Formats: sequence, structure tokens, C-alpha cells
Amino acid sequence: MEDRYSSLLSSSEDGAPKKRFSEVQKERREQAQRTVLIHCPNKISEKKFLKYLSQHGSINNHFFYESFGLYAVVEFSQKESVASLQKVTRTPSLGTEAAIPFRSRYFNLKLKTPLNQTSEQSSIQCRNQSSPSSKKLFELLCCAESVDDQLNTLLREFQLTEENTKLRYLTCSLIEDVAAAYFPDCTVRPFGSSVNSFGKLGCDLDMFLDLDEIEKFGTHKASGNFLMEFQVKNVPSERIATQKILSVIGECLEHFGPGCVGVQKILNARCPLVRFSHQASGFQCDLTANNRIALKSSELLYIYGALDSRVRALVFSIRCWARAHSLTSSIPGAWITNFSLTVMVIFFLQRRSPPILPTLDYLKTLADAEDKCLIEGHNCTFVRDFNRIKPSGNAETLELLLKEFFEYFGNFAFNKNSINIRQGREQNKPESSPLHIQNPFETSLNISKNVSQSQLQKFIDLARESAWILHQEDKDRLSPSNNQPWGLAALLLPSVANSMSLAKKKKKTSSERIKNLLESIKSSSTENSTATNG
Amino acid sequence: MEDRYSSLLSSSEDGAPKKRFSEVQKERREQAQRTVLIHCPNKISEKKFLKYLSQHGSINNHFFYESFGLYAVVEFSQKESVASLQKVTRTPSLGTEAAIPFRSRYFNLKLKTPLNQTSEQSSIQCRNQSSPSSKKLFELLCCAESVDDQLNTLLREFQLTEENTKLRYLTCSLIEDVAAAYFPDCTVRPFGSSVNSFGKLGCDLDMFLDLDEIEKFGTHKASGNFLMEFQVKNVPSERIATQKILSVIGECLEHFGPGCVGVQKILNARCPLVRFSHQASGFQCDLTANNRIALKSSELLYIYGALDSRVRALVFSIRCWARAHSLTSSIPGAWITNFSLTVMVIFFLQRRSPPILPTLDYLKTLADAEDKCLIEGHNCTFVRDFNRIKPSGNAETLELLLKEFFEYFGNFAFNKNSINIRQGREQNKPESSPLHIQNPFETSLNISKNVSQSQLQKFIDLARESAWILHQEDKDRLSPSNNQPWGLAALLLPSVANSMSLAKKKKKTSSERIKNLLESIKSSSTENSTATNG
Repeated sequence: MEDRYSSLLSSSEDGAPKKRFSEVQKERREQAQRTVLIHCPNKISEKKFLKYLSQHGSINNHFFYESFGLYAVVEFSQKESVASLQKVTRTPSLGTEAAIPFRSRYFNLKLKTPLNQTSEQSSIQCRNQSSPSSKKLFELLCCAESVDDQLNTLLREFQLTEENTKLRYLTCSLIEDVAAAYFPDCTVRPFGSSVNSFGKLGCDLDMFLDLDEIEKFGTHKASGNFLMEFQVKNVPSERIATQKILSVIGECLEHFGPGCVGVQKILNARCPLVRFSHQASGFQCDLTANNRIALKSSELLYIYGALDSRVRALVFSIRCWARAHSLTSSIPGAWITNFSLTVMVIFFLQRRSPPILPTLDYLKTLADAEDKCLIEGHNCTFVRDFNRIKPSGNAETLELLLKEFFEYFGNFAFNKNSINIRQGREQNKPESSPLHIQNPFETSLNISKNVSQSQLQKFIDLARESAWILHQEDKDRLSPSNNQPWGLAALLLPSVANSMSLAKKKKKTSSERIKNLLESIKSSSTENSTATNG
Repeated sequence: MEDRYSSLLSSSEDGAPKKRFSEVQKERREQAQRTVLIHCPNKISEKKFLKYLSQHGSINNHFFYESFGLYAVVEFSQKESVASLQKVTRTPSLGTEAAIPFRSRYFNLKLKTPLNQTSEQSSIQCRNQSSPSSKKLFELLCCAESVDDQLNTLLREFQLTEENTKLRYLTCSLIEDVAAAYFPDCTVRPFGSSVNSFGKLGCDLDMFLDLDEIEKFGTHKASGNFLMEFQVKNVPSERIATQKILSVIGECLEHFGPGCVGVQKILNARCPLVRFSHQASGFQCDLTANNRIALKSSELLYIYGALDSRVRALVFSIRCWARAHSLTSSIPGAWITNFSLTVMVIFFLQRRSPPILPTLDYLKTLADAEDKCLIEGHNCTFVRDFNRIKPSGNAETLELLLKEFFEYFGNFAFNKNSINIRQGREQNKPESSPLHIQNPFETSLNISKNVSQSQLQKFIDLARESAWILHQEDKDRLSPSNNQPWGLAALLLPSVANSMSLAKKKKKTSSERIKNLLESIKSSSTENSTATNG
């Protein structure tokens, strides 16, 4: 387990101080820059492989994984080793085909003569880069000892591994090399689920091209009457500049970028992007430009995820539950997004008594001068040092929180109230979207504007049903049986209420009946849990 | 005159050894790499400007010229000075517009406060970058002392200046920076008229992207059983690779390349190319890829041009004559090209007795092991060291050569013979094109395949008429009068025969009559000239 992402993130649990988001980003990026990606023959001796590469310098870290073939990620101690390796690497001669002679950090290792099958049989251990199948997940959940154990198991199985995180930073770094050819001081930064600690194995890799560092160059010395500027192409707006830059980088990725396939330029979107598949790493990548607010949102989630160990376990389970019931989707539409679900969990945890998570406004009051952050006129300031945030005194179990989450949102007055993690309390909806969740930084925006009334209703119905299932189990005190899904596993099964509601549309569904049943059960059960945890 | 291109090329005349083509190319390229291009305010103090730039290192050389505004080309002694200047240079803030933050060696100098008009009046001397107007040329030719003087005057006025040559290499170097972003070891080499010593001011800038150096990298150390290659994109052919590379570089030039406008991708041509206009230098540029044979042709012309001082003077005059009569054109079509005309002059000079220029086969016999050159299966070997070529014993005047050139081609059996500078004698035409000039290296090709019968006839008619005009002058012994065009100037006037032939098409033109007249005159005049020059 030592190689898990959690080892870095939840290091507070073993006493080490938690690292700031910016520190992690910087460290990972620097690691990635001295890392290479190597496509290996299927049969290879790990020992000889490492010896061969060690000619170019000592190796800090390496691992193998399988994608379309066998790949190795090798992190050297020194950046110079990469240049040394590149120096003895040639562009392949392809016979009838021709090669675009691009010199990247993505290599192809060949054997002059195939390995002797018997003497040097490959015994390479590959690191898994994908989340478990539904079948495997069910087995694991059913074998768990408690609902709390179920939620932690799900987290453990779905969260990004240390290796997968390295591979994500490496992929960004390889794309940065392509962009840096023209914009030498640019940075390609991962954001969103790859870095906010809420990403699951297999999630898309969101990255953005940060050109802001470039602007900071050329601080003028007062040289008499002269002012030297680069001659540049001018375009009518920042948006057009972004579109042009992404367009050309898209061309480069398509024509030169080794392993970059299916390049799509989606330049007329609100946030222009280039989508492509990085074949070797298996990541679906979205490259945008100057997406600083999104990066700040990632940092905020990272902090919330690290403040209390229950947060990520609950978020992963809720997301998994939502996906199992098609409340979320990988294609854009009227569905709730993972980000909205995460904000809903955070809001719910802010509403507990005592609160498990602080409000964003409170995090802002803890900020010092260095934390100050203003992006495009939006105040994105909050404390970034974990040590200044007092841990919660709330000791509720994950089981209780899961149940209460479903009850809370099963009964939430979505028709008149907005969810707001900045203030940690319900607010009057400023507009008529069915679901209103305030964007934490661009506060006039609703992050779930896309959600339709029917999708919201489906969410409410499923939340009520899930609360009911958990209450029933509680009531029946079913002892976990081997074959019968229970607890979280039961919640992931196809919904009865939902299939019913599909069958008899427009009819008053079972949802209202369940709600009433819950009301009656609630009083006693809440007393019980308060008694247990108080 | 010390700043003229001729100073470098014809250095043998003042005793210094002539430089090899490759030496000149290397030296110029290296110069260009430590050179910057600066767009200046219209009013500027040259002294303060140089003092300001000297902060970054000593300046070898500089000059100003006018294009769309005032420009300076500044050559530092050290490459590091360029980096130092870039370091204090900022990307402009454009108010409502946005900039593509590309950091090149093309700068924009601004004044913090405008210069005081009276005290620091600009007295900057600009170097001319264009050839003289027809009017100016006529004046100069009419003032000349002899036909020989006329030809040399025309050469002096039309040939590339030292500054214009520097600007051409600088432009290639700036484009190389764009390409080198992705192909670090590439070279963008000028070829054709910019370097073959036959280019005139204002001619297009042909350049090619040379990726061959890249291939030479990665000479493998035998490292056990391993062979490391770059992971690259594979395409079905070299041609497609070239198209893709040029396509992306075209996109980069269009979107990022400062001063590059009107970018056209002509990728389906036999030799795929990107055409664009480099605004600051005023050059129309054609960028191709891996055009090594063309570069070798340039080198061959460079050698022929340098072997005897009469060659370039004659070629420039013939080209100017052809252009004046619309025998050549800047648009592709059935016209004769400048390259064909040059080869015709070379062939003519090989046919003199004694020859003024050696055959290509003879230059091949002088080659040593290092001169060996095989490109795409074609033997492009010839001697590159001038010292091994014996100067011609022929002392004919330019006046005579001009006259004889017109006579020679006025009577050439184009219908059955091919022009062949490899063997220096007429050959039977291997195919039926009206004009057949063997490609010196790709010997199965005809460099004038495009020329139509009517264009060839026009050339023959004009050659005969020009020969006749020169003979008439000779006969009449007209003393040069101030207002009457004479000698070369008379040849550049609109053709009488030609306008007649246009008026009475299909009729037997005056051309045949002139030919017969010439025949009768010839015997005596040839005797005369032989007597004079023998």
C-alpha cells in the first residue's frame, strides 16, 4: 500500500506534515521532467534493462505497465541523463515507411536478437492503471466488515495510484515539450481530477497551457529612452490568441506528437480545447489554455480532501453510486457532474453539527498576505497551509454520513434554495435553474446550470430510495451474508424505484411513499446514532 | 563598392583566394545566427541606438534599410548577446488586442518619449534593397563608355548587395528558429538565386528545410542487446512526411511567425512547398524540404559564376534582356526560366574557342575523394576547389560575346539538338519538347520541358533581331549619343520584329530576312573580331 497516492496525500495520518498543493505540483513536475517513457519488447530482462539505462545516470524510480504493449516509466535522478539517452538514440529507419524525425522523451526499445525464451523469461511485474471491474468491486464490498470498511475499500480501489499520478504528470510534461518548442517558458499543468485528490483510475487528464510565466519575463531595465519588445502577431482578442495557439499545438500533436492520436480541435467552445488520446499512457487528454480558476478550484478540493479522511471516502462512494445509476455520464448533457456531486458532499459536511469541513469564507479569513489570489477579477483567496486549519471535532461514522447524505438531499428544497460552500448554508436561488450550486469563485455562476428538472428528480428519487435501503438494513440488522449485496453494494444495484418510475411515468412514484416512511423511521434512528456517537 | 556581394565572390580579382561555396554558406549562416532584426522608430539617433545595443555585447556590423518603416540589421560578435537582448525584451501589451507571445530575434524598438525633432534629427543612411527602375537603368547604360561597360554596369546595379545577402541569410535563420523548435538539428538553407551569384535584387528567396543532419545523430554504441529509437509518427512515404512537416511549419509561420504573411501551403506540387511573404525583409519566400539537388545546382552555378568575370555580366544582361521582352515571367507557364537562360549562357561559353568555361564532366574529372557526392542515385560530383581549375585563355570582349550569343542561339538547331553542359556539346534530342536542356544532375530530365514552340520561336526571333541591331551599330559605328539608346540599352527597347510578328501573325517574319542579312555580314565581322582578339 506504500505506493498509493494516499501515502502522499494523507501523510498527516502517519505524522508527516501534509504538503501544500503548489509544493506537490512543483515536485511532481520536476520529477516528470527527468522521466522518460519507454515502449519495451514484451520479453525483457528487468535487470539488464536497468543496467542499460544506468549508463546514462542513476535511476530514482521505475515501474512497468501494460497498455498497447509493455511500457516502462523511468525516473532518473538528474535531468542530464535524459539528454544523454537522447544522444545515443536514433530516428528509426522504416523501410518503405517514413518517420517524422521528432526527438521526444518517448522511446522505443528494441532487441537486436530476441531473448532466449527459457533462460531469461520475463517476470516483470506490471502496475495496474485501471479501476476494478463492477464484478470485482462487488466481491470486495461484500467481503468488507462494515459499511465504513466498504467506503474505504472503494476509495482504495478507485483512487489514483502513485504510478498513475506519475504517469499523468509525465504525460503533461511530454505535451509541455511540444508546446515549449514555441513558448519556451510555458508550463503544461494538470488540473481537475488528476490533481484534486478526487480522481479515479481511468479518469480523463485535464491539462492547461500556462503562458503566464512568459509575461513575467523582460522586466525592463530603464535603458535611456528605449523600450525593446518582441515583434509578435497581433490578434483582436485573448480568445483568438488562445484559439490560434491551441490550433497550432493541435497540429503539432497530430502530425509530430508520438503516441498522440484522435486529435480534435474544439476551438469554438466557451473554453477552447484540444482533445486527444495519448496512446501509450491510455489517457484521454483535454488541453486548454490559461485555465487558472480551474486550477484554483482543484487546489480548493485538494484542501477539502486532505482536511478529513472521511471526505474522499464519501465523495468516491457518492460518485460511484451516481455513475451506477447513470446520474452522471462521460458525455456532456443534462447530467449532474462529478464536480457538482463533490461540492454537494462538501456542503453536506459543512452542515453537520459540529461541522466536518469549514466554509470557504472561513478558509479565506485564515489566509495571509501570500495566499492572496485574484484571477480575472475574482477573489480566489483561501488559506493554503493545512497547519492553520483546526481539525473537526465531529466523529460521525462514514456509515451514518452516507445515510444522512441521502436523507439530506432527498429532502432538500431544491426549488427555492441554492447550495453554497462559500457560506456553508442554503441561500435563495438567484435564478430558476432546477439545481443551483454556486461556483465557489465565479460566484455569479451556477456550476449545475446544465441539470434538467428530470435529472434532478431522478437524483432525489434515488437518494430517497438509498436512504430507505440503508434504514431498512439498519432496522433488519441483517448480518452480512456472503452472496447477498449489503450496505454500499446494495446501493449500487439497479434501482427498483427508478425502474418502476420508468414503467409508470407521470404517476406518483414510490419516492413520496419512501419519503413518508423515512420521516417516521427517522426520529428514533437519529436518536440512536446521536447516542452512539455523542 | 566595398560592400558589394562581388567583393566576396570575385575576391580572386584582388588577389585573395576565392571561398568555396560551403565555406561561404557556413560563414553566412553562423553570422546570421548572431544577428537580430529590429523595427525602429522613424526618428532615431544611430549613435544612441548602437550604444543601447552594445550593452549586450560588441557589434560586428550593422545597417539600416527601409521597408514598411525603418529596420536595422545588427550583427553581434557573440551569439550570447542575442540571448542577453531577449532577456530584457518583453512581449507587448496591446490594450484591446492580444499578442501571440512568441520570442524570436525580430524586435520592435520603441521610444519612451519621441525624439526632439530639432536636436536629434535622424540622419540615418539606408541601404537600398531593390534594383534600379527601368528609367534609371537606361540612363546608366546610355552614360556607359562601351558595351562592356554597359554589361558590367548592369551587373553592378542588379546583383545582390552584401547587405541584401545578409538579410537573406538572416531571414532563413529566423525561419530556421521556427522549424528548429521541433527539429533541433535542422538547417534552413537558402538556395537558388540568393546564393548562386546570379540573383538580382528583389528576387525570391528560395530556402529548404534540411533535416538530414538529424539522421546522422544517434550513431549507436553497441550496448549489449539493446537498440534505442525515438518513438515517432510513421507515415506511408517520405513525400507525406515532407507534406506534414511543411504543413505544420506553415501553420506556425502563419499563426506565430512575426512578419510572416500570406502563407500559402502548396503541398501537392511535385516539390511540396510553403510560400509566404516576409514583410520586414520584403522577401517572397518559398520553403521546401530536403532539396539537396537544387542546392548542388546552386553550387555549380556559383563555381561557373566565379571562374570567369564575364560569366555573371553576360548572364545578368541576357536575363535582363529576356525579362524586358517578356521571354521570362514571374508566374509559372510556358516561359523560359532564368535557370534555363543561365545554362544556355554557360553552354555558349563552353562552346567558344578556346572555351571560357569547362564542361561539367571535366569538373568531375578534377574532383577528389571529398568532392564525391551522390544524391538520390544521381552523381553530383564535381571539383569544389577553384584552385584546381585552370583559368580560360580566351580573351573575347563582353561585347563580342553578347553579339555571338544572339547569333549562336538565333541559328541553333533547337528542332534536333539538346543543350548539354555536362559534355559541352550539342546532343540529339531524346524527346520532342521544343526546347531541350539537359538537367545537369538528373540527366534524364529536361529543365525547359515547359517551354512552348511559340515561346521558343519568340526567343529565336528576338535573338536574331538583337544580333542584327548590334551588327548594324557595329557597321554604322554610331558614336554613343546622349539621348539615343545604344548597345545593350537598344536591345532592351520593345522589339520591332516582335511587334511586327504580332501584327502579321503566321506570315514569314522579318526574322528570316534578318537571319540572311546576318549571314552575309558575319564572315567579315567574325574575321574582324578574331583579328582583334587573337
